[in-house]
Amino acid sequence: MEIRKPITVAEAVRKVMTAAGSGKKETIHIDQAYGRRLAQDIIASHPVPPFDRSPYDGFAIRAKDSKAASKDHPVTFRVVGEIGAGSVFTGELQEREAVRIMTGAQVPEDCDAVVMFELTTEHTEGTDKYMTIKRPFSSGDNISFAGEDTEEGKVLVQKGEYINPGVMALLATFGYHMVEVAEKPVIGVFATGSELLDVNEPLQPGKIRNSNAHMILAQIERAGAEPLYLGKLPDQLDLCLSAVGEALQKVDMLITTGGVSVGDYDLLPDVYKEIGAEVLFNKVAMRPGSVTTVAKTGEKILFGLSGNPSACYVGFELFVRPVISHRSFSEKPHLKKVKAELAQDFLKPNPFTRFVRSSIDLTDGVLRVDPSGFNKSNAVAVLAYTDVLMVLPGGTRGFKTEDIVDVLLLDSHEGSEWPWE
Amino acid sequence: MEIRKPITVAEAVRKVMTAAGSGKKETIHIDQAYGRRLAQDIIASHPVPPFDRSPYDGFAIRAKDSKAASKDHPVTFRVVGEIGAGSVFTGELQEREAVRIMTGAQVPEDCDAVVMFELTTEHTEGTDKYMTIKRPFSSGDNISFAGEDTEEGKVLVQKGEYINPGVMALLATFGYHMVEVAEKPVIGVFATGSELLDVNEPLQPGKIRNSNAHMILAQIERAGAEPLYLGKLPDQLDLCLSAVGEALQKVDMLITTGGVSVGDYDLLPDVYKEIGAEVLFNKVAMRPGSVTTVAKTGEKILFGLSGNPSACYVGFELFVRPVISHRSFSEKPHLKKVKAELAQDFLKPNPFTRFVRSSIDLTDGVLRVDPSGFNKSNAVAVLAYTDVLMVLPGGTRGFKTEDIVDVLLLDSHEGSEWPWE
Repeated sequence: MEIRKPITVAEAVRKVMTAAGSGKKETIHIDQAYGRRLAQDIIASHPVPPFDRSPYDGFAIRAKDSKAASKDHPVTFRVVGEIGAGSVFTGELQEREAVRIMTGAQVPEDCDAVVMFELTTEHTEGTDKYMTIKRPFSSGDNISFAGEDTEEGKVLVQKGEYINPGVMALLATFGYHMVEVAEKPVIGVFATGSELLDVNEPLQPGKIRNSNAHMILAQIERAGAEPLYLGKLPDQLDLCLSAVGEALQKVDMLITTGGVSVGDYDLLPDVYKEIGAEVLFNKVAMRPGSVTTVAKTGEKILFGLSGNPSACYVGFELFVRPVISHRSFSEKPHLKKVKAELAQDFLKPNPFTRFVRSSIDLTDGVLRVDPSGFNKSNAVAVLAYTDVLMVLPGGTRGFKTEDIVDVLLLDSHEGSEWPWE
Repeated sequence: MEIRKPITVAEAVRKVMTAAGSGKKETIHIDQAYGRRLAQDIIASHPVPPFDRSPYDGFAIRAKDSKAASKDHPVTFRVVGEIGAGSVFTGELQEREAVRIMTGAQVPEDCDAVVMFELTTEHTEGTDKYMTIKRPFSSGDNISFAGEDTEEGKVLVQKGEYINPGVMALLATFGYHMVEVAEKPVIGVFATGSELLDVNEPLQPGKIRNSNAHMILAQIERAGAEPLYLGKLPDQLDLCLSAVGEALQKVDMLITTGGVSVGDYDLLPDVYKEIGAEVLFNKVAMRPGSVTTVAKTGEKILFGLSGNPSACYVGFELFVRPVISHRSFSEKPHLKKVKAELAQDFLKPNPFTRFVRSSIDLTDGVLRVDPSGFNKSNAVAVLAYTDVLMVLPGGTRGFKTEDIVDVLLLDSHEGSEWPWE
């Protein structure tokens, strides 16, 4: 039997990232941009506000005309025009003249203050309109000045960032009708294992349904790539080889689940050999997922994940996801690492680095991590409640409630530059 | 000018939820289920594991046959069969007979222990195969017993929960080939405002590009509903009425941005009146977004959000999102509320409840909230970095670094039952 030499998680991830290649960009319509990653910086193409604007409904005036106004000596202005949002007042203002102005409209050139509607009284004389105020205003009062929120030319969001609703608003504001985004890498998924039934098949003795493929397809989507399910890999080497060869024409990366151990039925090691792929590693000093294998052929990476659901899940998040993020121009392609307080004892010793599928609680403002679903590495139910991977370093002898541990966040669009030691 | 009476945020949300109606379900293929919300519980349709299974590659034996094994007195077993994962051994075992077994395979009925491959030595005599062990095993050693992870009939995930990759694994495992999920409500969006340019138009004096619509469409998607952009609402009341009437045929809810103030150009109040919609409220004691209006006609809710980008953003998250979640069967339809520590002073007094668009940091395991982008309510750039809404109660006079405040999480799939006091 082949003896495999385990490498550390850090070393394994480093090898994968060296092989990760580079991303491609594509230009899409803004309507398709939500949830993608930027392949260009968003730059303020104009100042914000683009002009001196009125934040209120009211009247634009020359502040000096209001100087004498007081409760006892109200000052009356003749209203010589009206500006709705989107229109512009082009006339000239004489002494004690005002312009009715709506929220968001451009303040006339001659004016330097806005009086809120509520602070005025109006009256008409014939066809002439007037408004009266009882206090003075200073130059600049109630004006949002051009550029006070954002200067022209400023980089507002950088290439590689996730496009959330706020980023969508910026794209629209600055006229990014078409947006350069990272092309989604296409990731093929093969399941292996003669014990696997399809989801619509009834259970049979000795068999289980194929859950890994459906899980991984969702993980691929969560990570921002395009999943392509390729079905079950045949049991015979020659059929297996041609299936893999065909798949590699269609995908940017290929994931297999199962078949990577050293058991008699594990064909993947032979597949890698036959197609001349370079095996980057085939054993990692971690639990679960020690048999995770990564190989490279040409520009394509082949991820051989374990057939065990939890090991498969963890292997994807540690090794496949950062490649997707890197190809999407993220500068922080790895899972976001933060500290958390253990919510219960975890007394199991950890000869190897252990990744415990856990849920988190933030209610009190302290990040608490609960590995309560932890049981054994094939307990499938715990994955439904998994928000984080708790990282317990190899060589540690167990942890107690309130101990501080590292956790890797799974649902964050933010990442880590390099979470490994 | 109409005088509006503000109601509290809690009261406003309560009114909206009373009008929220109920969700519909639809049955979809598992391949489409990721990211949706369950409209049925996931129940374990069989125990997990479904049979006594081997967690390792090795040999299945009768433990009692190994009783005498030791370093000095190894015991040899005749290997009478082989079980790959997915196949079943149907023969009977005699004394000191073993069956070669692969990871995941069903343990033969006669066996009660599995010996890991690494702890054995093999040899052959003619066509007969043998394996030898140097230590005894107890009944139950290295067997994952049927049902030890999950009993049959157990509810594993409840109706209303978000379908993440782990939930996908469960759906597949238990044969949910077709899944009942919440139908996504269709939400129409109209923009209003004569100052609005389309994203592809060049900037013009006094005008700005329409950023709210693109932002809201993304917020609708993030909240799990189906956005439908309906363009700009006409400026004339009659055209406006027929546009709204037509839209209501196509959507479950209707959002407008802008046009809800009491300004001369704000048509929405008249629209509500003309179509006979019941206005639930048209003023809320909050900043930003005090002019947020919600009306109901038949089963359809009309959300009149402010035209100010930040007010629009907040209005959506507080009032529209919980209706979407409620119709998706979530028991916790409101934004998840947690405590956080202020990362910097926020000295502005808050006469009304204030929702500050903020970013959070979790690095040290303590949730810190940073309102650094806070500036004025129309500062568009801050929304790109907004993860949470910080809630500062009305009547407070400012907060200092390290003060504990409430925040509402925007990117969480988990919610609150009722975050308001």
